[in-house]
Amino acid sequence: MDKKIPLHFEDDRLILMDQRYLPQEIVYYTATTYKEVYYSIKEMVIRGAPAIGITAAYGVYLGARESAHLSQDDFSKKMKEVCHYLASSRPTAVNLFYALHRMERRLAAIKERPREDVLLGLLEEAHAINHENSQLNKAIARYGVQVVPQGATILTHCNTGPLATVSYGTALGVIIEAHYQGKDIKVYANETRPRLQGARLTAWELIQEKIPVTLVVDSASALLLKEKRVDLILLGADTIASNGDVANKVGTFMLSVLAKEYNIPFYSVAPTTTFDFSIKGGEEIVIEERCSQEVTHILNHPIAPEEVEVYNPAFDVTPAEHITGIITEKGILYPPLKESIAQLAPNL
Amino acid sequence: MDKKIPLHFEDDRLILMDQRYLPQEIVYYTATTYKEVYYSIKEMVIRGAPAIGITAAYGVYLGARESAHLSQDDFSKKMKEVCHYLASSRPTAVNLFYALHRMERRLAAIKERPREDVLLGLLEEAHAINHENSQLNKAIARYGVQVVPQGATILTHCNTGPLATVSYGTALGVIIEAHYQGKDIKVYANETRPRLQGARLTAWELIQEKIPVTLVVDSASALLLKEKRVDLILLGADTIASNGDVANKVGTFMLSVLAKEYNIPFYSVAPTTTFDFSIKGGEEIVIEERCSQEVTHILNHPIAPEEVEVYNPAFDVTPAEHITGIITEKGILYPPLKESIAQLAPNL
Repeated sequence: MDKKIPLHFEDDRLILMDQRYLPQEIVYYTATTYKEVYYSIKEMVIRGAPAIGITAAYGVYLGARESAHLSQDDFSKKMKEVCHYLASSRPTAVNLFYALHRMERRLAAIKERPREDVLLGLLEEAHAINHENSQLNKAIARYGVQVVPQGATILTHCNTGPLATVSYGTALGVIIEAHYQGKDIKVYANETRPRLQGARLTAWELIQEKIPVTLVVDSASALLLKEKRVDLILLGADTIASNGDVANKVGTFMLSVLAKEYNIPFYSVAPTTTFDFSIKGGEEIVIEERCSQEVTHILNHPIAPEEVEVYNPAFDVTPAEHITGIITEKGILYPPLKESIAQLAPNL
Repeated sequence: MDKKIPLHFEDDRLILMDQRYLPQEIVYYTATTYKEVYYSIKEMVIRGAPAIGITAAYGVYLGARESAHLSQDDFSKKMKEVCHYLASSRPTAVNLFYALHRMERRLAAIKERPREDVLLGLLEEAHAINHENSQLNKAIARYGVQVVPQGATILTHCNTGPLATVSYGTALGVIIEAHYQGKDIKVYANETRPRLQGARLTAWELIQEKIPVTLVVDSASALLLKEKRVDLILLGADTIASNGDVANKVGTFMLSVLAKEYNIPFYSVAPTTTFDFSIKGGEEIVIEERCSQEVTHILNHPIAPEEVEVYNPAFDVTPAEHITGIITEKGILYPPLKESIAQLAPNL
């Protein structure tokens, strides 16, 4: 299988590159039931907001397939349960809810048809979400590359490449596109504690692409910004509120404060499906708190006293006023972000 | 041996609690030669600026003991080599140079005496440095506790307790003293990548003292400051320049920017031996860069692609203007720090 593609759907099996083992081992996880799909999201076999959405969409299809023998009433009930269950896998990524909502809408439109057609329709919808995501990412990269100067050094955090987005990537998609265009870029990758997506995934993806990458611990990136060793910061987003506040991997907010202090351009890169217009501001975004084991253990080895308390937010919220721009497939939004987002909304 | 004392000198053996194995295992490392002492500092068997200084002082004594059979000329030459070698173990902690300087001065004063007396004199000096450090730390704690409000929540980074200072501690000494005084404090400990001194050592020391402690990844502490879940920040220092710029564990600078942005009091806690009056400002401080393995491996397990480049500064410099005060054994210095330090200097 292509090492760059972390998700593959074939013969009613969802085959995922198990990101918990990268970069040391390339292991695949196969899901054939919606509960296995839930597990793969919850336990971060796959992660990254766009990839989670696509995975969940296939999960709805697999759930329908498992329930195809049920009566119309029971099937409807069961499908509600399936969608509800998948939605509970991770609370912060809006793409998950977007994908589930599309699957539910499609189901509502075709549910009276023969069960076989329902299944076909749902599979078609999941494929469409996957395909559209890939188109979105390409469009994002085309806009994003405009903000990358020739010879730029770029700082990024967490992982936003093909592993997170199934194809191309958001922030990393822009970086890869800039590289393809011969912009002679270099990248600093924050390791991204606790789950080390920067060290394990971003560094690995950049090395695959032969883009020069230097790994730093998260707190050391403050130095890079102060010393102007970075020309711009490109990051993904998990949810964007109507006012332009952005929820993204924990550590993003810290970078945004430093970027503001040292005047380093700071861009969020995300498809417009990441906007949640029902959310006015960052304070309304539900931040997932994950288990303490993520902090106290690395690769199953303890690195802290067993009995220690842990505060482990998976995400944080960056206020709109720290953001230079939001790079989307519809173009780049600039401050005032609330107005730019409001102008864009009717066209989505 | 007392679990709270990381260093013990007895029968010409320096016995160190090997901090590389804490908190999972309590293992002791015994040094009987100056090269073993060098190794223990270089490889961080022991770490923390004050502890490094004391360790190096005993290293000079052990080097003299090994060389006691040499002629006067050869002995002098060898001792220069010993001090030079020990000084090269870690470049950033000024306490190391302070301790070596004191040992050299003592040696210069007594070198003509019978060799046995020279050895006794050097051992006495090392013991004196150790004892004075303990007195200093107690005095620091007495001053420091004044800035800790009743019921305070304190954020700290890296490790500055007995493990780092042989007795009591600097920033952690203040925290422990506040606890002893019944101030009902709580502590957030940054895990402190790459070597996880916060997770491994600070959390462990606080649990020993029954002080409530919550562990966070370094970048998540930004959230704690923004949300005012922390009343003050207490940190150690490895070198303080004449203008009040402070070199300390990487991550300190990041915290200082956030503390300034969100008006959280930010104190450096260190004995006046940490001042280096020959250094005008932070830009003159030599920052140690350590090996990439510290970032790419945890407990010898790889967590990044083998071939990745790494930038791994062990320390960073916090500008004086980000610092609320410097807590020393002579009292608390307040801004303008350059003037406060200049006033203090003649009394040191």
